[in-house]
Amino acid sequence: MTTRNWTTRADNRAARLARAAQALGSQLRGKVADAAAITELLEAVIEPKDRVCLEGNNQKQADFLAQALVQLDPQRVHGLHMVQSVLALPEHLDVFDNGIAARLDFSFSGPQGARLAKLVSEGRIEIGAIHTYLELFSRYFVDLTPQVALVAAQAADAQGNLYTGPNTEDTPAIVEATAFSGGIVIAQVNELVDGATTTLPRVDIPADWVSFVVKAPRPNFIEPLFTRDPAQISEIQVLMAMMAIKGIYAEYGVQRLNHGIGFDTAAIELLLPTYAESLGLKGKICKHWALNPHPALIPAIEAGWVQSIHSFGSELGMEDYIRARSDVFFTGPDGSLRSNRAFSQAAGHYACDLFIGSTLQMDLDGNSSTATLGRIAGFGGAPNMGADARGRRHVSPAWLRAGREARAGRGGAAGTPRGQKLVVQMVETFREHMQPAFVDRLDAWQLAEQSGMELPPIMIYGEDVTHILTEEGIANLLLCRSDEEREQAIRGVAGYTAVGRGRDKRMVENLRDRGVIRRPGDLGIDPRDATRNLLAARSMRDLVRASGGLYQPPKRFRNW
Amino acid sequence: MTTRNWTTRADNRAARLARAAQALGSQLRGKVADAAAITELLEAVIEPKDRVCLEGNNQKQADFLAQALVQLDPQRVHGLHMVQSVLALPEHLDVFDNGIAARLDFSFSGPQGARLAKLVSEGRIEIGAIHTYLELFSRYFVDLTPQVALVAAQAADAQGNLYTGPNTEDTPAIVEATAFSGGIVIAQVNELVDGATTTLPRVDIPADWVSFVVKAPRPNFIEPLFTRDPAQISEIQVLMAMMAIKGIYAEYGVQRLNHGIGFDTAAIELLLPTYAESLGLKGKICKHWALNPHPALIPAIEAGWVQSIHSFGSELGMEDYIRARSDVFFTGPDGSLRSNRAFSQAAGHYACDLFIGSTLQMDLDGNSSTATLGRIAGFGGAPNMGADARGRRHVSPAWLRAGREARAGRGGAAGTPRGQKLVVQMVETFREHMQPAFVDRLDAWQLAEQSGMELPPIMIYGEDVTHILTEEGIANLLLCRSDEEREQAIRGVAGYTAVGRGRDKRMVENLRDRGVIRRPGDLGIDPRDATRNLLAARSMRDLVRASGGLYQPPKRFRNW
Repeated sequence: MTTRNWTTRADNRAARLARAAQALGSQLRGKVADAAAITELLEAVIEPKDRVCLEGNNQKQADFLAQALVQLDPQRVHGLHMVQSVLALPEHLDVFDNGIAARLDFSFSGPQGARLAKLVSEGRIEIGAIHTYLELFSRYFVDLTPQVALVAAQAADAQGNLYTGPNTEDTPAIVEATAFSGGIVIAQVNELVDGATTTLPRVDIPADWVSFVVKAPRPNFIEPLFTRDPAQISEIQVLMAMMAIKGIYAEYGVQRLNHGIGFDTAAIELLLPTYAESLGLKGKICKHWALNPHPALIPAIEAGWVQSIHSFGSELGMEDYIRARSDVFFTGPDGSLRSNRAFSQAAGHYACDLFIGSTLQMDLDGNSSTATLGRIAGFGGAPNMGADARGRRHVSPAWLRAGREARAGRGGAAGTPRGQKLVVQMVETFREHMQPAFVDRLDAWQLAEQSGMELPPIMIYGEDVTHILTEEGIANLLLCRSDEEREQAIRGVAGYTAVGRGRDKRMVENLRDRGVIRRPGDLGIDPRDATRNLLAARSMRDLVRASGGLYQPPKRFRNW
Repeated sequence: MTTRNWTTRADNRAARLARAAQALGSQLRGKVADAAAITELLEAVIEPKDRVCLEGNNQKQADFLAQALVQLDPQRVHGLHMVQSVLALPEHLDVFDNGIAARLDFSFSGPQGARLAKLVSEGRIEIGAIHTYLELFSRYFVDLTPQVALVAAQAADAQGNLYTGPNTEDTPAIVEATAFSGGIVIAQVNELVDGATTTLPRVDIPADWVSFVVKAPRPNFIEPLFTRDPAQISEIQVLMAMMAIKGIYAEYGVQRLNHGIGFDTAAIELLLPTYAESLGLKGKICKHWALNPHPALIPAIEAGWVQSIHSFGSELGMEDYIRARSDVFFTGPDGSLRSNRAFSQAAGHYACDLFIGSTLQMDLDGNSSTATLGRIAGFGGAPNMGADARGRRHVSPAWLRAGREARAGRGGAAGTPRGQKLVVQMVETFREHMQPAFVDRLDAWQLAEQSGMELPPIMIYGEDVTHILTEEGIANLLLCRSDEEREQAIRGVAGYTAVGRGRDKRMVENLRDRGVIRRPGDLGIDPRDATRNLLAARSMRDLVRASGGLYQPPKRFRNW
């Protein structure tokens, strides 16, 4: 006879809820807790060694809850296993400094990458793994299910229904995994409505899934991560964008795509209504996007290039523009954006034909990484969108052509016809401080040795990259038939870096004759035409004007 | 000056809602429409050529809405583009027969596969593509966004909140894509509660996302697709299950996995508490699952093998058992299962180390397919879970070992270290009616020619398969170093099929010496031990007993 208790999770949740009720007393009304009692609430519901998902998103941050977590008594709460998409705030690492937390599984740590590396080297933090977002969400339902989720929403009603507003981002994935596995969900909100005289604009997360809501003293922090001032786009970036459009987008007929973050891809967005229009490409490329609401896309949207955009998150200042362009964006009955990182990442993986992004380093096999010495930056969505989606079965001309190029002349399993995703790495041969983008060996290898990682932290594998685009030209790796050819194709666009200077000139010319390498001239592009005049907007003010005044950039982007 | 209207979708939705209000009059109270008015409702809100997502799931069917759709006047509603996961009911094809619908994008058509092939050959249906589930959901957010979604839920309240109960399945993905893009969502429900004196057990879909609810005259159809009677498991299947456990699961230390549907994998599940236990594997393998609530897993759960299960859908008869085992299953505050096909497929793709399933045909390159002549069956989740997840970055021992085996001795990009998913195809060499499972050429090629498909409908590509398991042994394709070796490894486990008889005996013996092929004896398994006595349950009754009476199989599975 089994005497096992099979409801320990449910019992444990009940115990945590009871502790909270007792600790807070009148500071808890239904699910609504006073901000002043946040320490008591967290200490009542969090147990040592809990797996805690603190909503650190690409943009939206549960910053009040992060600050409260740091303030807990390490005697009571310690050894937590933090699972979260992004390490963005100092508090996300402070919890490791003071012993509240011990272990970390995450996706991206942009601004905290250097400090994270330091903590790891000091042995004060144990990293489980670096994930791509959708991979991390997936593990929430398998072996990294949180006991406690600390999330951020725009507003809640007295019942605990949440309105996430335009920045829904990761919230549904986190809350679903936690709420249906006996966990506790605490939401910080900017606003409380009573649900009777005032109601939520819409419900994004049902109250049943939420344990507690707390009105934070300040609105949650949001970073305008995807805003790029067109004034900072260089003419080299214009040239590269022209090559991307004419040499890749037009060539393959790319209709569904995702752009990474940065000035390189912003330049492409700003050339659609000008340069791409002059090539007669309107309606033939760039119709459907998995993309945050990039301000740089406004001119293309206004010119009728864009049919749909599904977004991972929102972008500060774009709220009114999105509301007024509901034919293009996914919006709710209240008119504001519905973003969803899980679905948008799935869309980027399975429903897009092309991913284009930048990197910091690339080696002779085409492996690339943003992990450099002294920084553990993580990858975000790039590995998911920059990998061939081998489960994909629906066809499109772009995908079929990439597959044909990759498989032509091959036999056996590798020769069986299938399509392939276009994965483009767009890099200037030298980055800031004249650091070469092309290297013989990625820093990732040394980083792996230093940190005891089982594998070097490679963001996009050479096996998945199809094109490398630099100011010197495009290397089409799909057409390479040996490791040697691949190496020379990479050297052939690596400019004056040591890697580029090490090219076998004859072989590179041969690759050029075969169309593996294409220079601007080979594409009929005169570099002298690559001027900033081609950009559909050359300043933030131009973007605002293009939006008919609907786009309202954050202050730091305004100089008028 | 632009004069474009940017809110055509929102305006169109308002117009559809207004038409419905006018057509139904008092038969519409808030969002609640009378079942008797379903024709008027659908004719009011559906426009010709609309993209319509009819909820045909793996299990749950919006059958009342499907029947109503067939009855519409083709003069008013015609040329629809149907997008749906599964074609399960005759009505799913009747709409093409009578001209209501013209185009189809889908994932799986099991029971309707033969009729679908006939309609295609007659030119009465235009197939966009066959997808794997997560791929189809992804396109709902990019280029296949529905204008109308017809879904099924267990209950609704007067406001339109939905309770999907244990079979949530595809509903959240469908409704989110439709509701936030100006579409109309109609839900058939088994039960209506007033929301005041009677309330929903929990809210799965917020009312904001739902346009109309209709109480159907009969509860929606659900198929117990994942129930396998242990009485029908053969001793060959027991032998193959022993090889899977000892030769693959134990070898790689597989902790997180997904099982396909069928008796082969049911046998594995039933050997965990017996054979696997005797090998000392408890706690070392099979702890975390992305899996429907397979009744065959009950003995392993009861014996403490299973730590967590996240499910795509539910399984009829398992409701009370799941409720009583909430430590293992994802359940809501009401105690019933929360399934979610989108998240479970993501989990299968990114958070599992192994997928094991069956196929109907496999060729000499290891490509396999369930598409055979005269039937267009589709693939369901297999391509997604049976493909190497190349975006994955977190490590596990199983994944690392598979990657090492695949890459040992390779150079260049292919030699860069990364892990690999274990993808096992488990087939008896002959299937029903002595049809060989191994063939020189898949029927898929001829099917593609007949139906004008751009690619043969291959379910799992040879490039992604790592192991082939038959009653003759295991072929480890990760260790093959040439197309010729791969072919001989496959022939070497293909038994007395023509493919098997065509083996080069010397090469096969060499592969065996290298451990590429392993026979039962090589694994220390005596086929005489492979008896049904090893099964932890040998009948449906045994499963019920193992569950302590909590599992209540549907009638057709009971003979007592």
